[in-house]
Amino acid sequence: MIKRSISITLPGSILLLAGIWGLSVQGAEEVSWGYEGATGPEQWGMLDASFAACTEGAEQSPIDLANAIPAQGGTLAVNWQLTAAEVVDNGHTIQVNTALGSSMRLEGRDFSLLQFHFHLPGEHTVDGHSIPMEVHFVHQAEEGDLAVIGIFMEAGAGHAAIDEIWNAIPDAVGEPASLGNFDPNALLPDGLGHSRYAGSLTTPPCSEVVSWVVLDETITVSQAQVDAFADLYPMNARPIQELNRRFLLSRPEGR
Amino acid sequence: MIKRSISITLPGSILLLAGIWGLSVQGAEEVSWGYEGATGPEQWGMLDASFAACTEGAEQSPIDLANAIPAQGGTLAVNWQLTAAEVVDNGHTIQVNTALGSSMRLEGRDFSLLQFHFHLPGEHTVDGHSIPMEVHFVHQAEEGDLAVIGIFMEAGAGHAAIDEIWNAIPDAVGEPASLGNFDPNALLPDGLGHSRYAGSLTTPPCSEVVSWVVLDETITVSQAQVDAFADLYPMNARPIQELNRRFLLSRPEGR
Repeated sequence: MIKRSISITLPGSILLLAGIWGLSVQGAEEVSWGYEGATGPEQWGMLDASFAACTEGAEQSPIDLANAIPAQGGTLAVNWQLTAAEVVDNGHTIQVNTALGSSMRLEGRDFSLLQFHFHLPGEHTVDGHSIPMEVHFVHQAEEGDLAVIGIFMEAGAGHAAIDEIWNAIPDAVGEPASLGNFDPNALLPDGLGHSRYAGSLTTPPCSEVVSWVVLDETITVSQAQVDAFADLYPMNARPIQELNRRFLLSRPEGR
Repeated sequence: MIKRSISITLPGSILLLAGIWGLSVQGAEEVSWGYEGATGPEQWGMLDASFAACTEGAEQSPIDLANAIPAQGGTLAVNWQLTAAEVVDNGHTIQVNTALGSSMRLEGRDFSLLQFHFHLPGEHTVDGHSIPMEVHFVHQAEEGDLAVIGIFMEAGAGHAAIDEIWNAIPDAVGEPASLGNFDPNALLPDGLGHSRYAGSLTTPPCSEVVSWVVLDETITVSQAQVDAFADLYPMNARPIQELNRRFLLSRPEGR
């Protein structure tokens, strides 16, 4: 019922139908890809014509968050709500699909929360340092482009909301299980200071349609929680991509 | 003797030989282009395969300078010297080629001044407003990429250095004439506050290799000086391009 597919209008007037990986697997996106070997990240762009941006794009994600330029703007508000949710093992990660009603506002534009999912290790790095895990909250604007809030999950105290999600993971891939009502705010740190840049999906088709916002503050998960995820997905992080000509901006202030 | 051609290394490892339009007309760059009709800006991308970026690029110049984000960084130093110079009417504009020795430093990187040239009206606009003329100081880094300082020329008092250049314009297109020793600093306003963004050449092949720096402060030229240029080139400004996903940053402080 929460399953969605979306259409994205790119600057170059290319219209593409992109499932935000997970549930809406359709057509070309059924091409098999992974994180190592013949279908690993270095090969993504060659696996399917629709994945070309993975190789040819110059605005790819993730990146190393280094030397961000302190800048005004980047006004961010998070308006997440207690929401009906379902957990799915989509074959690449554990993903929580949320009902409509939660949103974020970035620079005066509204984006609706669609889902969030996890990476191990964290996909973005900080001055070359890797973080144990990272959760990505995927939002979409009416115009079709995305804003994703990335939150690092450092090793430390266990997180009750993560237990709640891990405990609901179904045995079978591709079969959503109800998570009941879930409050995404449980995974949001206090401050909203962040780095931002223009990037891409970190998975095929690597579409360059994402306004990335990676929070400075982190949440913690226990080693046992990391290990439980690693049992399912020991490594689902795309390697760091070049910044190229993009500006990486930082906004230190909290909410 | 000051004639140069340059090689530019693009992020995608594409090596292209680009004459910084004017003297080094070679090969594909002999394709005729202009500012109206069948060879005008809307057609540039179709005139030659090497001009594809003019149509397909998403980081094109010029742009409208509006809503720039105040940001740190953008450290700029201009180290221009009194230099041997020559004036050429290259068929698209009046261009002054400078001897080596002048440079600029942007964010810790050095770029050597190659030439400067004029556009009427100014190519960049400010909140949608057009300025009578704009001069572009084209610099190149050792790595091949360019930094261009754009300076608006508003209607006002006449400028002695402009008279000096205009008086040296040769009658024939493509035949450089000596300007003797010229001090580019005569065309530099006092303050170095600016807007900056990642853009392109504003003429074919529209290569996306330019760090643009457009100064906030302006210089003035008389209406007679504008008219004299207009007698040669009544309109040599490319229309405004979309900002797309780029950040336009501003740095208010002077030198």
